Amino acid sequence: MNESETQWSKTEKNIARQAFDKAHQLEIEKLIEEVKERARNISKVEDMWKLHDFLSAKRYDIDGKYDDRDSSLIFVFAQLVREKLLSMDELDGLAPEKRAKIVALSRM
Amino acid sequence: MNESETQWSKTEKNIARQAFDKAHQLEIEKLIEEVKERARNISKVEDMWKLHDFLSAKRYDIDGKYDDRDSSLIFVFAQLVREKLLSMDELDGLAPEKRAKIVALSRM
Repeated sequence: MNESETQWSKTEKNIARQAFDKAHQLEIEKLIEEVKERARNISKVEDMWKLHDFLSAKRYDIDGKYDDRDSSLIFVFAQLVREKLLSMDELDGLAPEKRAKIVALSRM
Repeated sequence: MNESETQWSKTEKNIARQAFDKAHQLEIEKLIEEVKERARNISKVEDMWKLHDFLSAKRYDIDGKYDDRDSSLIFVFAQLVREKLLSMDELDGLAPEKRAKIVALSRM
């Protein structure tokens, strides 16, 4: 990667932080709704353990996904765009090389 | 232990099976209600991970507790009586030595 893909200006860091936090909040809100829905629909013990497995997987996934180190952000944003937790509009202001890389990776 | 505490007649096995299954069902029903209640009350991410931790602990606890080997039943029943998931009435028909042992252990 060239420098504009790996170095983050102060302005870019602010944009990244806002986008990062917003996507995280959206994912958590969606997940809480899904957990409530799944819990409402528990009728037998297997459903309850399925909810437990679901929470285990999501917790592991979320713990790993939101890596806010500068060197990871391009990949994190690409994943968030792919999962529709973030739109490219929310990354307005990042260097064009960063945006291009995020778009390309998000389509893989 | 003497023989009447470790050997189970066919009649005793039937009584034990019924009591065992009934307590298990009661525990699961109570747990499902509690999980639904906890899920309804989730308002932030920490509440959701607390529900996950709660389910992890309960699953581990229940997996270990309901050990239906003959050699374990006295201890299992004592724990279930202690936790009010089973009453001694439901163990009517077991040899008096077994009942006495269960009562004694349930008070420890």
